[in-house]
Amino acid sequence: MSSYQAPLQDMQFLLQQLFNADAVWQSMPALADTIDSDTAAAILAEAAKFNAEEVAPLNRAGDEQGVQFAGGRVSTPDGYAKAYQQYAAAGWVGLCGEPDFGGMGMPKMLGVLVDELGYSASNAFNLYASLTAGAALCIHAHGTDALKQRFLPKLYSGEWAGAMDMTEPQAGSDLRHILTKATPQADGSYRINGSKIFITGGDHDLTENIIHLVLAKIEGSDGISLFVVPKLKVDEQGNSGSANGVTAGAIEHKMGLKASATCVMHYDNAQGYLVGRANRGLVCMFTMMNYERLSIGIQGLGSAHACYRMAADYAKERKQGSTPGAGAEVAPIIVHGDVRRMLLNIRCLTEAGRALAMMTGLQLDLAKYAEDEQQRAKSTKLAALLTPVTKAFLTDRGLDCTIDAQQVFGGHGYIRETGVEQWLRDTRIAQIYEGTNGIQAIDFLGRKLVADCGETLQALLAELTQQLTQFSRVPQVYIERQRSIQAQFSDAIAAIIEQKSQSPDLINAVAVDALNAFGYMMCGFFWLSMSDSAQHHQSELAAALVQSKQQLCDYYFSRLVGRFDAHLAAVTCGATSTMQMDESLF
Amino acid sequence: MSSYQAPLQDMQFLLQQLFNADAVWQSMPALADTIDSDTAAAILAEAAKFNAEEVAPLNRAGDEQGVQFAGGRVSTPDGYAKAYQQYAAAGWVGLCGEPDFGGMGMPKMLGVLVDELGYSASNAFNLYASLTAGAALCIHAHGTDALKQRFLPKLYSGEWAGAMDMTEPQAGSDLRHILTKATPQADGSYRINGSKIFITGGDHDLTENIIHLVLAKIEGSDGISLFVVPKLKVDEQGNSGSANGVTAGAIEHKMGLKASATCVMHYDNAQGYLVGRANRGLVCMFTMMNYERLSIGIQGLGSAHACYRMAADYAKERKQGSTPGAGAEVAPIIVHGDVRRMLLNIRCLTEAGRALAMMTGLQLDLAKYAEDEQQRAKSTKLAALLTPVTKAFLTDRGLDCTIDAQQVFGGHGYIRETGVEQWLRDTRIAQIYEGTNGIQAIDFLGRKLVADCGETLQALLAELTQQLTQFSRVPQVYIERQRSIQAQFSDAIAAIIEQKSQSPDLINAVAVDALNAFGYMMCGFFWLSMSDSAQHHQSELAAALVQSKQQLCDYYFSRLVGRFDAHLAAVTCGATSTMQMDESLF
Repeated sequence: MSSYQAPLQDMQFLLQQLFNADAVWQSMPALADTIDSDTAAAILAEAAKFNAEEVAPLNRAGDEQGVQFAGGRVSTPDGYAKAYQQYAAAGWVGLCGEPDFGGMGMPKMLGVLVDELGYSASNAFNLYASLTAGAALCIHAHGTDALKQRFLPKLYSGEWAGAMDMTEPQAGSDLRHILTKATPQADGSYRINGSKIFITGGDHDLTENIIHLVLAKIEGSDGISLFVVPKLKVDEQGNSGSANGVTAGAIEHKMGLKASATCVMHYDNAQGYLVGRANRGLVCMFTMMNYERLSIGIQGLGSAHACYRMAADYAKERKQGSTPGAGAEVAPIIVHGDVRRMLLNIRCLTEAGRALAMMTGLQLDLAKYAEDEQQRAKSTKLAALLTPVTKAFLTDRGLDCTIDAQQVFGGHGYIRETGVEQWLRDTRIAQIYEGTNGIQAIDFLGRKLVADCGETLQALLAELTQQLTQFSRVPQVYIERQRSIQAQFSDAIAAIIEQKSQSPDLINAVAVDALNAFGYMMCGFFWLSMSDSAQHHQSELAAALVQSKQQLCDYYFSRLVGRFDAHLAAVTCGATSTMQMDESLF
Repeated sequence: MSSYQAPLQDMQFLLQQLFNADAVWQSMPALADTIDSDTAAAILAEAAKFNAEEVAPLNRAGDEQGVQFAGGRVSTPDGYAKAYQQYAAAGWVGLCGEPDFGGMGMPKMLGVLVDELGYSASNAFNLYASLTAGAALCIHAHGTDALKQRFLPKLYSGEWAGAMDMTEPQAGSDLRHILTKATPQADGSYRINGSKIFITGGDHDLTENIIHLVLAKIEGSDGISLFVVPKLKVDEQGNSGSANGVTAGAIEHKMGLKASATCVMHYDNAQGYLVGRANRGLVCMFTMMNYERLSIGIQGLGSAHACYRMAADYAKERKQGSTPGAGAEVAPIIVHGDVRRMLLNIRCLTEAGRALAMMTGLQLDLAKYAEDEQQRAKSTKLAALLTPVTKAFLTDRGLDCTIDAQQVFGGHGYIRETGVEQWLRDTRIAQIYEGTNGIQAIDFLGRKLVADCGETLQALLAELTQQLTQFSRVPQVYIERQRSIQAQFSDAIAAIIEQKSQSPDLINAVAVDALNAFGYMMCGFFWLSMSDSAQHHQSELAAALVQSKQQLCDYYFSRLVGRFDAHLAAVTCGATSTMQMDESLF
């Protein structure tokens, strides 16, 4: 059952009314001539069409068939290679890439929407493209001009794919212990030797070449450096040649995401090129990692949206039972309050989540393109703060939403044929890879909120509080609730900043609840903002859209807002109850 | 990776100290000579041994191989039939069955623990036995003496299996629309014709015969009646004979529980025997259904426990990173507060959930065996109130726990080989079958709390409040919090009782949050009760057990108790925000 339907109207509303994209883009010279709302609309419509026609139909079969490993090579499910080549040819991989090397230079705020359209058609398919775009971003940010010339054009064109090679069996969340070695050569390149595990897209048959970004230690050093290591050697003109000693040793058999190749990789004297400075590899890799973290958050979002459409359509068709309220003898199950609850949960979390992802994209655009240096600095910090939240909150809620959607189907949701259960299995990994959501939360609370003594947070909260005063079309009681939530969150973080030296385990113990509290706080803000904006712009918008934003805002402030309190209570209780139990008692 | 480890010490504590089982059993003549705490301990130890040695090792392979369907027959994975026959031979199927027909007559409070030991070894395997015991219970409650003589001995002995045949494609949660027909025959039997779907254990090769309890409409009537329909005809002496026109047409391919046969069943002039009165089949089937609902709750509990052991063991072995608090260079991941958070969540919910399941079992025992008629009536109502909570709350939390456990494993948790992901897939169905958790919640709120104007609830709350006054070994601040929670819950239900006539959709809209609020309320009560009881009995108990109960109580009242508030807030907000959105806006 494929019921792919792109939420183009909602996306347009967010771009044009909520984020006022035209004005924002006009304010940045690098974007002013590249994009406007008409072009954006055309791009979204085209992306929706391609994903509906070429990608969505592959998703179920890809799960059934999975990737195969034989003779040292990985093959993707039937139809993947052809669709990927069409996808690349249409320019999607280089959408936000650098125009100097063949990218289209589009803003990330638009890119996140295109990414969502891809993930909501197929998690596994879109991931290959996402890794390629991230690898290109990293090479552009940290590589020499020669490296950029050599590798970027065919990454942006999609002729080659990218991969991110970090994890080793003994070095998962803690990369300090990697053993892969890099030996300097007379020509300035390095010989890479070692093995990695869990390498997404480590090998496949979608593209002529695969460009690996590999973390390794230069012989004699304990620092970690980053290398470009192509599967096939690449000459200085950027042409692929012979094999480079980069091979897949096996693929993993996983719970889901079966059309995505998760590889054990071996490097046998593979030729690699240093990216950025020696021993600064983690910092360089974080350029790619942050790109992927945002993208993976969008994986959760795309899954939630895809499931919503399936579940809402089913709820309107499936007839079972009746209700006192509905009165009818047999009615579609959408008349039942509990079915609505599940669908409304998904809607509220998905639409607010999309706004959060776009806000992160916007800050990345401002960090890169804003004329004002202070704005660039401010947005850089804000994007860094929002990235782990977007990754973790959207994937945690993404899983919740796939579970709710599956539940709408009753017993039929547990049967593979229906297709909804695949979304749960596929999106479950999004809470784990690119840094588990626990790691995201520690990054968020420790490095993004506490390390600068709350400065970035306070700037954000001041901005949100200021905007609250301008929302004149939403119930005052919601505004007061939101104001209180923001103040409570601010106080809770201030208390952590004060206590952290006495309680060294505090941040690690409460980080996940802090991230979730922040996520729900942002959802509350966005619902007020979306409801207010929709009413403000009602003459330009469909009445149904305006009404649904108002009613979803009601739902959020009636039924979901209490989740903030539950998470905040867990943040403010300190670390003792979590840390006191002796290891032997577990 | 099998790390089956039965929580026998915790189970003993709950039986002996918390529920004072010996005194309770002595108070009921039918149980006084059957069971005491020594016998119970021996039974639990034996069940743990059998499940560890014979069942747990089949679980992973059962998932990989799954059930097969060929030539109209279902075959279970290698080893299942042999293990099942051993299981039956040891008497486990008839543990709580009627002694008159070969059952062992053991109390259900003990039965729920044995059931948990089974589910925590293998969801799929234990389900076959659970359905058999439930079918026997139903036949015993509603069948004629002749039917009991004919079918019960070989069900209790496990030579035959049972199945519950209700769902049809057009009749899932709403059974009124079933089409299966029963035609009366001259000999008093019926000919059954029709088809059903989603029949767990509808066909398999574990036993000589399968005894189906089938819902059908007697020709000319729109009422629903219940029939015993054996796979092989059974003569009056209780011996299996020739085929009875009951065949599997297909099996479903599911997300999980792959070693459990979920069958499409066809009845082609199958000979069936009426159970109970004509047109009263739903009421009779509910005897089996309620049995299975409790059992399925325990499926969630068993999965959570199994995952906990895997995750806790992994967390103590796996070394990654360090913490400021732990100080070590590289430490096992259990030093991380966030890893502890996930493990402690599971512990808190599993141990309180086990107490809840036992309380339900105890009420069933009292309802059946108590000398005092008033006690029997009171316990009947309380068991009816607790059953949907045990089913839904324990399966919802069971899924949460499997997700947390999988997260502890990081990327390794997503790989099939590790085994933890299977528990998530297997236990996901428990939220759906035997009535979705939404259906449970509507039953709980509508029929169990509101229909008697809160009388049963008030009796329970009065009892809990009275017990709170006796807990002298737990912090007073927790007692006050719990007292407030109980009062808030009482007020919320009173308000619903008052509003329901004006708001016909209210119960359906808020039922799931009401059930969850009640579940967390009960968890709070049980943590106070367990901590107090452990300290009170500390001279009889291991110091580690006493300490862990105290510390888990701290954790619960620090970090999890806020979930009650979030759910209660969603209960008290009314139905408007859930019901107002027009169907076309979904």
